[in-house]
Parts: sequence; structure tokens; C-alpha cells
Amino acid sequence: MASSLSHSEALSLGALSLACALVLANTLSDGGEGNPVVASLAFSLLAFSSTYALVRWLGNAFMRRGFKGRDLCKLKQTEMPEMMGAVSAMVYLFTLIFFIPWPFYKDIVAATSGGGNRDVMQELEQLASYLSAVLSLQCIVLLGIGDDLFDIRWRHKVLIPAIGSFPMLIVYFVDFGVTQMVVPTPLRPYLGDLFDLGWLYYAYMALLSIFSANSINILAGINGIEVAQSLVIALLIVLNDLLYLLFTPYPHPATDSHLFSLYLLLPFIGVSVALLKHNWYPAKVFVGDTYCYFAGMVFAVDGILGHFSKTLILLLLPQAFNFVYSAPQLFKLVPCPRHRLPHFNARSGLLECSRVEFKKPLARPIAASLKLLHRLRMLDVETNEQGEIASSSNFTIINLWLVWFGPMREDRLAMGLLAFQTAVGLCGLLIRHRLALLVFTQDNNDNW
Amino acid sequence: MASSLSHSEALSLGALSLACALVLANTLSDGGEGNPVVASLAFSLLAFSSTYALVRWLGNAFMRRGFKGRDLCKLKQTEMPEMMGAVSAMVYLFTLIFFIPWPFYKDIVAATSGGGNRDVMQELEQLASYLSAVLSLQCIVLLGIGDDLFDIRWRHKVLIPAIGSFPMLIVYFVDFGVTQMVVPTPLRPYLGDLFDLGWLYYAYMALLSIFSANSINILAGINGIEVAQSLVIALLIVLNDLLYLLFTPYPHPATDSHLFSLYLLLPFIGVSVALLKHNWYPAKVFVGDTYCYFAGMVFAVDGILGHFSKTLILLLLPQAFNFVYSAPQLFKLVPCPRHRLPHFNARSGLLECSRVEFKKPLARPIAASLKLLHRLRMLDVETNEQGEIASSSNFTIINLWLVWFGPMREDRLAMGLLAFQTAVGLCGLLIRHRLALLVFTQDNNDNW
Repeated sequence: MASSLSHSEALSLGALSLACALVLANTLSDGGEGNPVVASLAFSLLAFSSTYALVRWLGNAFMRRGFKGRDLCKLKQTEMPEMMGAVSAMVYLFTLIFFIPWPFYKDIVAATSGGGNRDVMQELEQLASYLSAVLSLQCIVLLGIGDDLFDIRWRHKVLIPAIGSFPMLIVYFVDFGVTQMVVPTPLRPYLGDLFDLGWLYYAYMALLSIFSANSINILAGINGIEVAQSLVIALLIVLNDLLYLLFTPYPHPATDSHLFSLYLLLPFIGVSVALLKHNWYPAKVFVGDTYCYFAGMVFAVDGILGHFSKTLILLLLPQAFNFVYSAPQLFKLVPCPRHRLPHFNARSGLLECSRVEFKKPLARPIAASLKLLHRLRMLDVETNEQGEIASSSNFTIINLWLVWFGPMREDRLAMGLLAFQTAVGLCGLLIRHRLALLVFTQDNNDNW
Repeated sequence: MASSLSHSEALSLGALSLACALVLANTLSDGGEGNPVVASLAFSLLAFSSTYALVRWLGNAFMRRGFKGRDLCKLKQTEMPEMMGAVSAMVYLFTLIFFIPWPFYKDIVAATSGGGNRDVMQELEQLASYLSAVLSLQCIVLLGIGDDLFDIRWRHKVLIPAIGSFPMLIVYFVDFGVTQMVVPTPLRPYLGDLFDLGWLYYAYMALLSIFSANSINILAGINGIEVAQSLVIALLIVLNDLLYLLFTPYPHPATDSHLFSLYLLLPFIGVSVALLKHNWYPAKVFVGDTYCYFAGMVFAVDGILGHFSKTLILLLLPQAFNFVYSAPQLFKLVPCPRHRLPHFNARSGLLECSRVEFKKPLARPIAASLKLLHRLRMLDVETNEQGEIASSSNFTIINLWLVWFGPMREDRLAMGLLAFQTAVGLCGLLIRHRLALLVFTQDNNDNW
């Protein structure tokens, strides 16, 4: 990979950064309403430029330090920088930190000089939860780098996001301590309007972090898929936020939550697009586990502090499906090879589904299940002369896609999966907004 | 180094941790006053145990990943783990995060349920500045790890602490925005009681961070000196805090600041003692730049948010002297060899001052200055037959100590320097409390 920007790249990024700086200066001078969103957009574009340039500049330094890998799905397996997601995560964190004055400065200072009141308290509480979000994300980046450096064992790895979520949970505990959920209308005669989950609410938040961060991490392996799937999720959440912000009358209780969500997601989209430019087929850099944890944690933090964790789960359905589908191999019911990447066919240049060979015959019920899955077109099974299962496709959604649609080039595979994910996500949002009206008395409940 | 704890170590650490857990459980149950300090002590001992065990357990993993170095001041230069300060920094950060509920929970929740008031606002502001402190420290750890990994250039390195201080500065700006300093009594007729420094105050805070973090980093090189000098500074600040907390009537405006300072420093002392146990002569691990930045930043954050930055500067005088003394070599007025460690004499087993040879004759004024320094016993200069300077001792306080007191063993050298540092620090505190009465109308001003 070239380690410097081309002339035109440098020019475009420079011009973009300059424009953003001017916009930011302008938001400072005119003092009008709605500035934080404009500022957030400008910061996100700045974050894009910085990440784009830094990924390029730092690639060689990463390789020199041993952070490098080979792309197994290519004819020419040249070495390329690994762990570059850490760069975008760092840019993201600093962007969030620099952004702090825009949403928080005016209200807090204006009000503290005029004596304390309820509004400022809320503002300060929001500042505290914003800071706790940044802290949680910073923790996850530190732990993710630790994982990329030391190859932590699988069973410890899974817990990293839970540890990363501590700052957020603790500040949530100190700051709000609200652990009640809104009860669906049909259940209200039995449970009341609000039901206090107590410590279960914290367990729920920790589990959501584990789920979100790890679900990105296991739908991985082909060029661009980690970053692109994160972008799809982020864009769908932004769509959901915009639906609230544009179509509900201001001021609405959910407005602040969805603004909060935008502030976290716009810069994330900025750094991720810059990373994707280098990680999309044919990849010039790898992103590393750090990015997957980080992206998943951005969603968890966003969903929890923005109060739409259930919507988030809907948007993670493809990842959840991939996890359930992978479970037989993850939990060793069926042998699991070291890598479950698709197989690269050097002659055709296409990816085929990778297979796991069963040296020992499978247990009766397992064999029967696999055959059933085969009949449902959810797996590709090959049997030997004795009718025993000799091999099957590996249990990942990526391989399943190849079973369904046959061998294809890596980028078409990624595009297909992303289109599927987008379709599922849009359906999820539609169902969530339709269904909510049936189950709750009003849709725009800020507890979603 | 053994990679596991001995039986007795495991037993002691286990017992200590259990005792701390019980104390913490107790502070939760009785709900009395003064609990946060007890909790902070318990957390600090827990942090000690965790760091002690983790440094031992992770040493080999660090070496396998290439984080290792040789001790140049030993006969047998075995390899040992490098960058272990990152472990203590991580433990420290998580300790600070887990500690949050103790000082903040009761007041905030009690008051938010009863409607907003001025006290809770202050509490929330303090929570925000506590979180910003943790964020700043986490930034510095991330950047320090980056430095340890990638060997950042000297001129960029110096700025790392400034970048790390951004979160603190930005939250300070949003949260308080107070940039006034108390004017010394003799100047009040001209400047008024308070003088607004404006943005200069932020520049001052950033510079203090740069100074504090780098000053630890350049007084380094012999076993234990980085950690032990940090411990001396931390203990002196704790002494200063205790003088306030014990001898001023409660409630005093400075009480909260000095409690804040204790909460940051007690766990720091915990993790540093555990690290020192492994880093003291003969060292089993190296601490890395990460530790030096981290320690310096703890002091800067503590001094700034605890409002005693000028006292902090007094306590850093030995480091400041070392910097000024090093300046001729740092700024290349005099040649600077790659390493300025003392020279290990394999025959005697003692350290001697290391020397720099001057291949080319020095410029007239520089040669004259060196000769003057030699006459003042501030340098050891050797001249050749022509009367030209052939070599001199290297310009660090460590070498100067060896010039003064002759060759000695590494641990005695460290002890001597630490005793000197402690003496200077105690004098500083004494002068600061005596002198303050002369220059300000009252001593216990919370702006110190």
C-alpha cells in the first residue's frame, strides 16, 4: 500500500477539512439554535478526513511493528497492515471529546451563573452520561488493543464488552438509577404501568453490550464485511433517529435521546467510511478485533443511553441469526476448523463455501439434524457411500450465502450480505413502529 | 521471572483482597459519613493486589509479544518484560471507575428525587470533572501505549500529555469556565482581588500537563527510579491533603478538592507500590514510557482539578532541575549520546557516571561554561594535554549524583536520589505554607 496520500486525495481532504473548520467557526459565532447537529456533521467529516489520512500514513508503521496479516482469499497473498480499526477508534474518541462544548457549553454556563435549576441538572446529567459513554468506548478500545496484541482466549474475549460497559453502567446507576421499564398495554392490569427491573436492568445492559460487540465480531472474515455491516446498522439507527426528530413535535421527551444518538453515530459513520475505503475489496488494510468490539459497543452505548435498546436488537437480527446458526460449531457439537472463511478457488478467482470434514461419524441425532438442515437448504451436506455424512459447509451466514447462490467474487458476496442485512433492518424498523402501536398505547415512547 | 505467585504471596494477596471486599461491603451497609475515604483505601489495597498478581501473570505474555528489554546496568543482562506500567495503569483506571458510586451516589440520588438544588449541581459538576479526569488518564495511557509500540519521534512525544489533557480542559471549560486567579496581596491595588487569565489559564493547564508527564519521563533509567520518584511525589501530595483535611475546620471550601485529590492518589499509590515491588533493584520488569506519562498525568490532573497546581510545581522541583540541567544535551548545545545511563563497571559491580567524549573541540563559550560548572562541582570535566575539554559526565541528575558521591550500587544510587527528592519536597511544602501567609491574606486558599 502507498504510505502517502496522492496529490488529489491530499487536496480533497484538505479542502474538506478547511470547509468543516469554517463551518465549526461559524457555529461558534452566530449562536443560533440547532447548532450542535451542524457541528456534529462538520466534526464527522473532519473525522473522516483524519481517519483516511492516518490509515494511509500509519500503515507501514503498523507493519514494521508486526501488526500485519495475509489475505487468504486472494491469489497474491501480500502482507498488509492489521489492527487499523484502532486508528479509526482513536480518531472517533477524540472527535467525541472535542465535540463536548457544542451540545453542553451554552446551557450549563448560562444557567450555572443564574443559579441552579431543574434544566441544568438534566443537562449536567446528560454531560455525565455522555462522558461515561466515551469512557466505556475508550475502555473497549484499550481492551480490544489488548486482545489484538495478546490473543486473549475465546472465553475471556467474550467478556471484554461487559467490562467495557462498566463505566456506562456505573454512571447510569449514580446519575439516574432508573431501572423501570414501560409495561406493554395488555400486561398493565397485572404489572402496573411501570415495572421495576432492579439489578436485572444492569444485567440486561451488560448482556446487550456483550451481544452487540461479539455479534459484529463473528460476522467477519471477508473484505469489508465488518465495517460495512456496522455502517448499515449505524445508518438504520440514524434513519430511526431522523424519523423521530423530523416527525414528532418539538420539544418531545425523546428528542434529546435521539439527538444524543446522532452525536454518537455521525462521527462513527465518518471514521467507518474512511476505514471502509481502505478495507473494501480488494482490501489494503485489515481492521482487527478492536474495530468489531468498538463498533458493537458504539451501538450498545447508543441504544442504552438513547433508550432504544429493543430497536437495536431488531437491527442486529442478521448477526443474531449468524450467532445461532454458528452455535453448533462454536459450542463444539460439530467439529470447528481454525478458520471458517470461504474457500478461495484460485482457478476461477471466486469464493466457494468452505467445508468441514467429519473424520469420525457424527452422533445419530446430530447427523439427522444436519440432514434436515440440508433438506431445508440451510446447509450443504455431502454423504459417503455408506450414507454417512462426510462433510458439510461451515456454519456461518457467509458460507450459507454461497450455498444458496453459488460461487461468486468476494465483493459480490459482501454486497449480497449487506443488501440482505439492509432489507431485514428496514423490515425490523417498519414492524417496530407498526407493532409498537398495538402493544403500547403510544408509539413515540422514549423508553424504546 | 516466575510467572506465577508463590504460595505465600497468593495467600497474602487473597486474604488482603477478601478483607478489602468485606470493608467495601461494610461501607455499603452502614451508610455513615466519611465512607468514601475508607472505600478509597480499600479499593487502593485491592488495586495493589490486582496489579501485583497481574504483573506476575502477564510478564511472559508481554515477552512473547516482543515487549522485552535488557538491563544494561547488570552483569547478566537477562531479558525481562517491558511496558508493564501499562498493566498498573489499566488496573488504576478500572479502580477509579468502580469507585464512582461511593463519593457520588448518595448525594445525587437523594437530591435528584427531591428536586434540583445548588448542592446537587456542584455534586454533578464534580462527577463530570471526575469523569473527565479518568478520560484524560485513559487518553494518556492509550497514547503512551502507542508511544511504547511505535517509538514516536521526540518532538511529537513531548506533546502527548497536552493531547491527553484535552478531555479535562474541555470539561473544565464547559463545567466551570472559571479562569480567574487569586492575586497576591501586594499586587491587589493594581490588579484587584481576582485576575482573569482567560485562555491563558487553559494554556497554563496544558503546559503543566506537558511538564509534569515529561519531567518524570526524563528522570529515568535506573531500576525503580521512575516508580519510586512518582511514589514520593504522590505521598507528599497526600501529606499536603491530610494537613488540610485534618487541621482545617469542616466544612471548608478546600475540603472537597483535597478529598478529590486523595481519591485519585490512594489507588495510584496502590498500583505503584505493586509495580515497584517488581521494578526495584534488581528489577524483574521494566515499566515503559506509558507509566511515566501516566504518573505525570495523574499529578497534573490531581493538581489542576484539586486546585493546588502551584504546590505541585514545588514538588516537581527536582525533576525541573534535572530538565534544566539536561537542557544543554537535549537541545544539542553539547553532543548527546543515545543513552545517558550511568556506566556499569563489571569488575566492581558499581555504577559510575557515564561520560560523553568530545571528538571535535567545543565552542569557546561552551567550553568556558563547562569548566565553570566543573569548578562548581556541577559536572566532571576531563581535559587533554592542550587544555581542551576531552570529555564530561553526562548532563543528568543521576550522573551528577555519581560525580558527587562516587561509584555506588544501583539501589543505593536510587535511594540517595529519592532521599534528596523527599527532602526538597518537604522543604517545598514548608516554604509553601509559610510563604503563603506572607503573600496571600490567608493560607488555606482553595486556589493553591
